[in-house]
Amino acid sequence: MGEFELIRRYFASAACAAGGEAVALGIGDDCALLAPKAGEQLAISTDTLVVGVHFPTVCDPFLLGQRALAVSASDLAAMGASPIGFTLALTLPEADPAWLEGFARGLNQKAQECALALIGGDTTRGPLAMTVTVFGGVPAGQALTRAGARPGDLLCVGGPLGEAGGALPLVLGEMTAEPSVAEPLLARYWSPQPQLDFGQALRGKASAALDISDGLLADCGHIARASGVALIVEADKLPESPALEALLGAERAQQLKLGAGDDYVLAFTLPAEHLPALSANWPALRVVGRVEAGSGVRVLDGAGADITPRQGGYLHFME
Amino acid sequence: MGEFELIRRYFASAACAAGGEAVALGIGDDCALLAPKAGEQLAISTDTLVVGVHFPTVCDPFLLGQRALAVSASDLAAMGASPIGFTLALTLPEADPAWLEGFARGLNQKAQECALALIGGDTTRGPLAMTVTVFGGVPAGQALTRAGARPGDLLCVGGPLGEAGGALPLVLGEMTAEPSVAEPLLARYWSPQPQLDFGQALRGKASAALDISDGLLADCGHIARASGVALIVEADKLPESPALEALLGAERAQQLKLGAGDDYVLAFTLPAEHLPALSANWPALRVVGRVEAGSGVRVLDGAGADITPRQGGYLHFME
Repeated sequence: MGEFELIRRYFASAACAAGGEAVALGIGDDCALLAPKAGEQLAISTDTLVVGVHFPTVCDPFLLGQRALAVSASDLAAMGASPIGFTLALTLPEADPAWLEGFARGLNQKAQECALALIGGDTTRGPLAMTVTVFGGVPAGQALTRAGARPGDLLCVGGPLGEAGGALPLVLGEMTAEPSVAEPLLARYWSPQPQLDFGQALRGKASAALDISDGLLADCGHIARASGVALIVEADKLPESPALEALLGAERAQQLKLGAGDDYVLAFTLPAEHLPALSANWPALRVVGRVEAGSGVRVLDGAGADITPRQGGYLHFME
Repeated sequence: MGEFELIRRYFASAACAAGGEAVALGIGDDCALLAPKAGEQLAISTDTLVVGVHFPTVCDPFLLGQRALAVSASDLAAMGASPIGFTLALTLPEADPAWLEGFARGLNQKAQECALALIGGDTTRGPLAMTVTVFGGVPAGQALTRAGARPGDLLCVGGPLGEAGGALPLVLGEMTAEPSVAEPLLARYWSPQPQLDFGQALRGKASAALDISDGLLADCGHIARASGVALIVEADKLPESPALEALLGAERAQQLKLGAGDDYVLAFTLPAEHLPALSANWPALRVVGRVEAGSGVRVLDGAGADITPRQGGYLHFME
């Protein structure tokens, strides 16, 4: 089966979905053609997932399809971009119809949720891996970068932290748990919800933003460096996660909230005057700290004592 | 080493090169930002190369870097797009500085030749593979697709055919040859020259176009299907290739010109009135056939007899 036929057969519903007038030419020619709106810039991000590195050798292809798309779509959210489309470069050891059907169903479902149209791709033979490149539109000058945080801004997150990291022992079969505990954590790992609408709502308000993929502290470090500021995380303000705390206890849960990656929740800095209106519309928003002059990232407890973890304790989460 | 640092260290010169004002934000944030010119569409293509499938396990990383970029850049040429930039998703079993230095040098050199700026990427651990996604600009409505060929048009190619396929026994160490024979063939395989300027010159003239990656007959089949026409290849008009004929003899050379992929030369259909001006500026252009009403691809000899090869004889070149 040729590559276009393979892609068309299994991924047709994603190719039809969404995209709209921004996709001038989709799958089947040498290139796809995007027609951004006048005054819009095109936001682009690319991510590769490799078997045995980013996902287990044995896993449900439906869940993997969801996750593969969500991880990249989250980068559009982090820039405040509106979703347009994506390309899929899929490397497969063999064309297993059952696997492809499941993977495509997961990918297509997440693509529809995210309003992303499949615009092109490549299928090759080799060890299982996939590279997804996503495209979004953002009015010129309004993209949310990592570089605008200013002393006095609040440090905020868009939802719960550490839950995808907490799910890892379940994903790897090292632990089991009651459905009420396991399910919300596994959902966070396998089907992250890219905060696309939230990211667009932050345009013109947030001074810096990213999605948490390396862990809160590591990602705050990216903002601190790019903006030339210090970020203070207030440990007692981190969002509660009943499932995470039930599975691993309060202390480990706290470590994961600070250090575990893969949550794909937005972290951003915000001038305080924008907080009331945003909080009213986005109830999951939490203020978890503040921006100060200086450099680096510190964690303070409720009494203001510095409890910044040694880097070594978190390194295995930070790659 | 973090992924941005890795990419910055080895690929910095490609990140600085070219791109110009179309690249509003390059490597280092959640997304890159492109700012296409008013009235321009963005052409996008993605290709994956996997070790042991698309290139030998043992090969010069400098040559591989050149080839990885050229293969994708050729898709921009095929659409008549002006080069803007590319992303690189690189999967490596280990961060070997000598390998990375060579690969980056080859990639950067080809990127500069092609005026493509590195705008983003991802580095992951795993079996050696690379996905390059390229971006170009094309005035709205002027992209060269596969769908516009009309009966009466000429069928043309932009340069020699079959030479990359002829180089394969040399690449794989199955044959050796004098430098005067080996070098031009190996250069075609390892360092294809994307016909970017030529592709832009074909805008508004060629009625359909693509780059030959699957072999002339298979790729003519793509144009025939997309345009709803028949393509006639006149075997005695195929470009001469002294090196190819010296290495493998006239008969095998002819087979490779018709069936071997990887040349990344443009094939296109052209209303005859555009031929004189184009030929004057592009001496490598050859008329190799014509478009007729009907469907499919046929090969005729100098006397007009049908010598279309059975598909089986070429299948291993057509994937």
